[in-house]
Amino acid sequence: MRMYDLIEKKKQGGTLSRQEIHDMVRGFVDGDIPDYQMAAMLMAIYFRGMEREETLGLTLEMAASGDMVDLSAIEGIKVDKHSTGGVGDKTTLVIGPLAACLGVKVAKMSGRGLGHTGGTIDKMESIPGLRTAIGRERFFEIVNETGIAVIGQSGNMVPADKKLYALRDVTATVDSIPLIASSIMSKKIAAGSDGIVLDVKTGSGAFMKSLEDSIALAKEMVAIGTGAKRRCCALITDMDVPLGSAIGNSLEVMEAIETLQGHGPEDLTEVCLQLCAQMLSMAGKGSADACYAMAREAMADKRGLKTLAAMVKAQGGDESYILNPDKFSRAPFLCEVRAETEGRIVHIDAAGCGIASAMLGAGRQKKEDAIDHCAGIRLNKKYGDEVKKGDVIGTLYASKKELFEEASKKLLSAYTIAEKRDKALEEKKLIYARVTKDGVERM
Amino acid sequence: MRMYDLIEKKKQGGTLSRQEIHDMVRGFVDGDIPDYQMAAMLMAIYFRGMEREETLGLTLEMAASGDMVDLSAIEGIKVDKHSTGGVGDKTTLVIGPLAACLGVKVAKMSGRGLGHTGGTIDKMESIPGLRTAIGRERFFEIVNETGIAVIGQSGNMVPADKKLYALRDVTATVDSIPLIASSIMSKKIAAGSDGIVLDVKTGSGAFMKSLEDSIALAKEMVAIGTGAKRRCCALITDMDVPLGSAIGNSLEVMEAIETLQGHGPEDLTEVCLQLCAQMLSMAGKGSADACYAMAREAMADKRGLKTLAAMVKAQGGDESYILNPDKFSRAPFLCEVRAETEGRIVHIDAAGCGIASAMLGAGRQKKEDAIDHCAGIRLNKKYGDEVKKGDVIGTLYASKKELFEEASKKLLSAYTIAEKRDKALEEKKLIYARVTKDGVERM
Repeated sequence: MRMYDLIEKKKQGGTLSRQEIHDMVRGFVDGDIPDYQMAAMLMAIYFRGMEREETLGLTLEMAASGDMVDLSAIEGIKVDKHSTGGVGDKTTLVIGPLAACLGVKVAKMSGRGLGHTGGTIDKMESIPGLRTAIGRERFFEIVNETGIAVIGQSGNMVPADKKLYALRDVTATVDSIPLIASSIMSKKIAAGSDGIVLDVKTGSGAFMKSLEDSIALAKEMVAIGTGAKRRCCALITDMDVPLGSAIGNSLEVMEAIETLQGHGPEDLTEVCLQLCAQMLSMAGKGSADACYAMAREAMADKRGLKTLAAMVKAQGGDESYILNPDKFSRAPFLCEVRAETEGRIVHIDAAGCGIASAMLGAGRQKKEDAIDHCAGIRLNKKYGDEVKKGDVIGTLYASKKELFEEASKKLLSAYTIAEKRDKALEEKKLIYARVTKDGVERM
Repeated sequence: MRMYDLIEKKKQGGTLSRQEIHDMVRGFVDGDIPDYQMAAMLMAIYFRGMEREETLGLTLEMAASGDMVDLSAIEGIKVDKHSTGGVGDKTTLVIGPLAACLGVKVAKMSGRGLGHTGGTIDKMESIPGLRTAIGRERFFEIVNETGIAVIGQSGNMVPADKKLYALRDVTATVDSIPLIASSIMSKKIAAGSDGIVLDVKTGSGAFMKSLEDSIALAKEMVAIGTGAKRRCCALITDMDVPLGSAIGNSLEVMEAIETLQGHGPEDLTEVCLQLCAQMLSMAGKGSADACYAMAREAMADKRGLKTLAAMVKAQGGDESYILNPDKFSRAPFLCEVRAETEGRIVHIDAAGCGIASAMLGAGRQKKEDAIDHCAGIRLNKKYGDEVKKGDVIGTLYASKKELFEEASKKLLSAYTIAEKRDKALEEKKLIYARVTKDGVERM
């Protein structure tokens, strides 16, 4: 195998064999294939795409490039959930405990945030004492005891993805469906769950801006999951505007708790219940409708909340913060952002909100950056709301006052307020479609 | 300027501005832009192409990345000739002296051979004593005195091309018309001549296999030359079969001498006269027809041959070899390759012949390889000839007998002998088209 020949083959629109993909992934991870050859290959894949078999092969070879987690020490059906990333997306903290209290095993490995999107591990670390670096044995024990544990990736998992992603990130080859799908699914497959529910975000704040691209990505990922002998389905959910009202780590944890208490924002609550229903149904707990009802009930009687508290306690965190979220420390400074015109909010650019939140200290630009857990934004006005000039549309939280000037401009510019109240409001869906191995069901 | 943004722009089909191209070429030569980013850019250019203005900009920035030769010390109009490379292509050694003896100044920098194609510098070095590493001042003097000098590239010329070509060579991005055109033309523009006659080869032994691709490349290069304010035109000439009968360094020099004596192979003689007529006409010596007649006359009365001898002498070589080519040392061993079937020769794969010649020691696989100046092949039978079983179709020359086995197989497989004599022979042209800034004139 000469990497040159594989680049030429893909450039001409050919299909790489499983053996060729194996040699390529191995050679790249081992350092025998230089970055410049892989960069040329990635760009060729961007233009030529990959057959489904190739994408599956790439995913499986990437997954096998490092440690594969064996979850057999955990009893029952293990279901993982993955979101393609958004702003204000704290669903894991709601859905995980809800599914777990209803008998699904959630043994989850999560990531940190980068750029304008947040990460579950960062959010969880705003709970005092909570550890996300937990050994394999103890991780299994916690899942067996409480039904759920959420830890950071440890060991040498999917090194091929780490190396490939770093290269894609600097060569403008991130936005390729087979490359995105193989990157996400290689991690999910290596993480060992029996089932995977995918939350594919769509809209201006999502990686995939158009519904059709989001569906295409979901189809690709579901096909890979199925090809890798996992149960797999995807919901296409809205990320045109932020999900819920809180953006920033402890602010989002508090909102997740509110949601588990049954009085979270409507949009967040609905998306969580739908995703949870998919996880339950996948684990054989009944039809999606029946599972939806079960999840709603577990929210109403706070079983989900109690499971979150149990998980936090098991992971060394102070569970009293979950039962009494007023204990979370507040940012020392706040700044209210006010509407400059009267009208109706016809758009809130999710990415812009994410960037404003990161400016306040809630996010990081580089992996090494520290984050401020109490920084962030609460959106006082949401999509469709009417506002008068001077109304508070958002509240900024930060540890340094000087961060407000730029961030408030950024947040203000994220809002689009239509001057005429009679302008027809585009009807937004929370969930656009469900993708399974059998096809696409549009909502 | 962030290279990432430029890659993204080109990937999306955008047009890079002159400033962006400048920054990119500078950054790459200076080492600020890593190979992996340039590799991604090259593949994006392969798929998206470049606008003519972009290709011109890239060429000019590449030319300006190192020393630009100022030929103003040479009187008269300086015309350069460039061939896109072929097998048995010894035209420079014929055309240069012919054009020079008729008043055109030929201040030529040539290259060495690589792979299955030869290089003029290697061929010239088979003449005892001849030096191709000559200082700038002396180079100008020789051209002023004899009308012509051919030297190797010296100093820091077009470093951007050297670095880009090395990267293209390992990332399967060689075959892109804007990249080929800018690579060739950057070197020609940096070399400083007033006019450039391009010999764009077409056919199985050429880089461009199809006539349409060859014409497209010629159009691109002529547009660049014109854009760079040089006189520029191109002939599209055949390289489906080797040009002339000799392949290998001293064998080709001998054939060039025969041609300047007026009894060279017909195909080689005609291509040389046509290219020479373009050079003369470009320098204002008359119409192409009149110039063709002048060139033929200078061949007949051996003025061209005398000019070659004068140049060889000026460059330190033994001119007696030019006037008496029997002096060239012969390879110690020869091997006749015989037809295995009867019929008509309907194809001679030029690349295959070039590879066989390189196997005998006449070429190099890597830049560092030494070459054997007396090794090579003489084709005893050419395209269209009828042969009987056992007829000698080619003669191999080498310094080691053990090289013959593999090379003779290779040469034999380069010949296609049609079993039926009545098979219609495809009519071959020597020159397919002439490309000027005003358009394409097909022959």
